[in-house]
Amino acid sequence: MGTVRFGDVYLGGSSATVGKKEMAGPLREWFDLHEEDEYFGMPTFEQAESEMVRRNLAHLFEKMNLKDEDVGVLLGGDLLNQCTGTSFGIKSHSIPFLGLYGACSTIAEGLLVGSMLVQGGFVPSAVAMASSHYCTAERQYRFPPEYGNQRPPTAQYTVTGAGAFYLTRVPSPIRIAEGIIGRIVDGGITDANNMGAAMAPAAADTILRYFGESGRRPEEFDAIVTGDLGREGLELVQELVHQGGLEIAPRHMDGGLLIFDLKKQDMHCGGSGCGCLSTVLGGYLVKRMRAGELKRILAVGTGALLNASTPLQKLSIPGIAHAVCLEAV
Amino acid sequence: MGTVRFGDVYLGGSSATVGKKEMAGPLREWFDLHEEDEYFGMPTFEQAESEMVRRNLAHLFEKMNLKDEDVGVLLGGDLLNQCTGTSFGIKSHSIPFLGLYGACSTIAEGLLVGSMLVQGGFVPSAVAMASSHYCTAERQYRFPPEYGNQRPPTAQYTVTGAGAFYLTRVPSPIRIAEGIIGRIVDGGITDANNMGAAMAPAAADTILRYFGESGRRPEEFDAIVTGDLGREGLELVQELVHQGGLEIAPRHMDGGLLIFDLKKQDMHCGGSGCGCLSTVLGGYLVKRMRAGELKRILAVGTGALLNASTPLQKLSIPGIAHAVCLEAV
Repeated sequence: MGTVRFGDVYLGGSSATVGKKEMAGPLREWFDLHEEDEYFGMPTFEQAESEMVRRNLAHLFEKMNLKDEDVGVLLGGDLLNQCTGTSFGIKSHSIPFLGLYGACSTIAEGLLVGSMLVQGGFVPSAVAMASSHYCTAERQYRFPPEYGNQRPPTAQYTVTGAGAFYLTRVPSPIRIAEGIIGRIVDGGITDANNMGAAMAPAAADTILRYFGESGRRPEEFDAIVTGDLGREGLELVQELVHQGGLEIAPRHMDGGLLIFDLKKQDMHCGGSGCGCLSTVLGGYLVKRMRAGELKRILAVGTGALLNASTPLQKLSIPGIAHAVCLEAV
Repeated sequence: MGTVRFGDVYLGGSSATVGKKEMAGPLREWFDLHEEDEYFGMPTFEQAESEMVRRNLAHLFEKMNLKDEDVGVLLGGDLLNQCTGTSFGIKSHSIPFLGLYGACSTIAEGLLVGSMLVQGGFVPSAVAMASSHYCTAERQYRFPPEYGNQRPPTAQYTVTGAGAFYLTRVPSPIRIAEGIIGRIVDGGITDANNMGAAMAPAAADTILRYFGESGRRPEEFDAIVTGDLGREGLELVQELVHQGGLEIAPRHMDGGLLIFDLKKQDMHCGGSGCGCLSTVLGGYLVKRMRAGELKRILAVGTGALLNASTPLQKLSIPGIAHAVCLEAV
């Protein structure tokens, strides 16, 4: 249970905005906008994240020639406490808004819920969006970046990035074909510096359920892209899926490994954050789909459902993963 | 834009669990469960909130004779950073989960999205839920309760409560008839101790849009119930709606004023929090509907989209309000 099918939901367009480190990575040519200043010209990192969200949505509107009244609903969220990155970033718009929280799986959750609302005829169109910022995430979950604290090898680097996707019933070259709503899976991991291991069991659960319920096989996909499992989580999810009787390794990629060059950039286990899959999918993958290089992909957003207090209270880190299947038509 | 209609979505049942102060208030006889211990037997307040969520959902399952496989999707959230009250409260269940964040409007958002998913045929049934706990909210947004800090007269008291609602296509005495997705409205309020004023403009926007788009009139409703505007916000929203050309005062109630006796209980402007409307609606109002005393109500969840940092960064407090119309059939 959890697999949902759509017939007439199309990706009208997307926009991806990133920061300096992401722009120095291998996907630099694919992003729509970037900013060298970590503050995005604002007085605080939190306001910087909202400014990034605002600019990215403005760019999508410009690209697609959209006005507020053309968007039936905005759906989105981020990693900031009470999702203020998104709410402050969009508050100048007069558009119905549904706030979502799925940690780093949020963009997949937004695409999934947005597609259901469009397919169900409740709204004519939707924009799904998610963001993260290295400096806000560090000081909220771990330490202020100014401390320069040491990071263990399993740590990941939160992507500074915002992605937005316009969903519509107007036919376009990419269709949101189906998706699956994730379940919470708690693998018992308590190390807040090992998000890959915390999220891998949920990713494996979603992937196995999706292939079990949809009747599809991994070979039908040009890419199965997890959001931000990083190097540690990548191997774990392949192993867990293998134990479940499926092989995804030949076509499995991870957003956290695509966005940075781990040989040249000091990013430990790779990128993470809501902005990771949002920008890798919205900037890179959908453009490769439009270019005809990828026909069908499964985007699996992966989220770790902790906050700054739960590991201090010795609680384990539950994970969740939502997935959407995008097809070139 | 934003109004959505349902034809075949029914409220199969609900459950409401509260704490000691709520049980000492005027609605005491209507709640399903209560707990005198603020810790709900757990070592921390945050774990207490999750335990309350867990017990309340377990009670709904027991009342309705539900198993995990009978629920197509759980939708919910709370006020804790990264919505851990909900995710830790439900993690023992194996049910597809969509995390929502709408601050104190979350239960209305959950009922709205859940009804769209059920009506659209994407899931056979859904549970919408939301919670808050006085002690977690105080220490997260303001000061640890142990400090005993003074609260200004406009302050509200966060309800310790959890509500859960089972949505199904199986006919039952109450129907979720329609709803409206709220927009963010920022009235420029910067006082984090005056949530009623911060949320009133969004509530008025949603109420005016709903009546404008649906073609209904306030007189068709036995009650128009805002979530948690409190005494200050109640007057403001009536005035703003009046300026918009509608009169709701004769049938307007507020969850924050229903749940506590402001003459006897020292609650300043009234109750607030995700748990306020969740328990007033799920415990009190729907039972009065079942008893035939209320035929049609509009439940307007009201949320303030701040976090602990945004007022310190001198940012204003945007509000949002989602509404659902429930009808006795």
